[in-house]
Amino acid sequence: MLERIRIVLIGTSHPGNIGATARAMHNMGLSDLSLVAPRGEPITADSVSRASGADHLVHAARVVDTLEEAVADCTLTVGASARSRTLPWPMLSPRELGDRLPQELAGPDTRVALVFGREDSGLTNAELQRCHAHVHIPTNPDFSSLNLAAAVQVLAYECRQAWLTAEPAAADEAQAREPADALAPDLALASHAELEHYFAHLERTLVAIGFHDPAKPRQLMARLRRFTLRARPERMELNILRGILSDTEKLAPPHERR
Amino acid sequence: MLERIRIVLIGTSHPGNIGATARAMHNMGLSDLSLVAPRGEPITADSVSRASGADHLVHAARVVDTLEEAVADCTLTVGASARSRTLPWPMLSPRELGDRLPQELAGPDTRVALVFGREDSGLTNAELQRCHAHVHIPTNPDFSSLNLAAAVQVLAYECRQAWLTAEPAAADEAQAREPADALAPDLALASHAELEHYFAHLERTLVAIGFHDPAKPRQLMARLRRFTLRARPERMELNILRGILSDTEKLAPPHERR
Repeated sequence: MLERIRIVLIGTSHPGNIGATARAMHNMGLSDLSLVAPRGEPITADSVSRASGADHLVHAARVVDTLEEAVADCTLTVGASARSRTLPWPMLSPRELGDRLPQELAGPDTRVALVFGREDSGLTNAELQRCHAHVHIPTNPDFSSLNLAAAVQVLAYECRQAWLTAEPAAADEAQAREPADALAPDLALASHAELEHYFAHLERTLVAIGFHDPAKPRQLMARLRRFTLRARPERMELNILRGILSDTEKLAPPHERR
Repeated sequence: MLERIRIVLIGTSHPGNIGATARAMHNMGLSDLSLVAPRGEPITADSVSRASGADHLVHAARVVDTLEEAVADCTLTVGASARSRTLPWPMLSPRELGDRLPQELAGPDTRVALVFGREDSGLTNAELQRCHAHVHIPTNPDFSSLNLAAAVQVLAYECRQAWLTAEPAAADEAQAREPADALAPDLALASHAELEHYFAHLERTLVAIGFHDPAKPRQLMARLRRFTLRARPERMELNILRGILSDTEKLAPPHERR
């Protein structure tokens, strides 16, 4: 699914933003980048540096003259817009866009373009009107201008979220390829009986050290139970806690021991 | 709600990333930025330029020496982690984090810190173990290193989404003027500083009773931290636990006391 999502940047001024866009795309598993009439050479020291290892996407980017060429084979074209202008258009939130992607990309010949405008002026009305829908990233109304690569990052993140949700098998595989835990926990939760043995040991120890008087309970054991149970203790954790109790008991004055 | 979410950057090398972080924050309506031991002066031409109009957040940023100082008053501390390491810790996705925020920030004295590590090496294990939970942004396993400001952008976006979702509900709730929940517990959660005082007291006591040898830590304190933080202790519960520690310490052999 992700390989059929194309990021289209129109009239980008700063090559650094193209590199940062490539990094954001590659981080989220997108690979198809098209540049429409970039202002200046896209491959510069700055764009390669900001790509930070994803510069192969910049090198592989298709450079074309018009939006039409960039999205000719796309079955859904969505333009990123700071707000709806002139003529209201179907408007999606990033999450709604993500929710639609699995269905939009179900067929093998489908392809989605996400189109981003110029750093200073965004997409023109003519460009916006070539899109099926617009996507608006909700922002602080007092400071709504997102960095270009940051906007790509948010939408690419929603694309990956949609993919992880729609293709759990693929998601599991991707997850499995992330570095494994060095020390997996013994995730065996303590049983009810083990917990009760622990609470009995705890109460016995608190009496022995003189902290607790069962004749004046003041909800003490209830509070310690609530705290402990909230954490859902693992068996190994109870073993540690019981070890502490045993060492504490040994220090208690003999006449207090039971 | 958003004003009580703090972004904490630790050991940032590139001032440009601090500026880009400020821009991402302001775009999403966040304003509280803390810098822990930044490597070099945070206010430079590059950081101001990348902030692109949000440089007042860089100027207002609190600069401190340690993570503890940065999050002392926070009731929930979440560390951004590329993966779980050494000792697995409660792990959230960015969306799960967002879903939790309205409830976490319901009380007036609550404050959430989102902690981000160094550009090259992230957060240390010691830093990660000071967090209640870790948040992992799902990425391409072949290219998982997100730019620092891009990671802040994704989490700040989820914060804003959560706020936009929660706000109408909160407004409705205020409208209904429901009586306060009589059954609600005293939800004064312990602050980070209170938790750290407790952990210091716990370690001191375990050494005093001979249970713990800091020269052979065997992950003991990490395991006890994980267990305790999972329960989200209330202030009153920590007071009980510290009372137990104080009475235990008194019983320790004098030569072991510190």
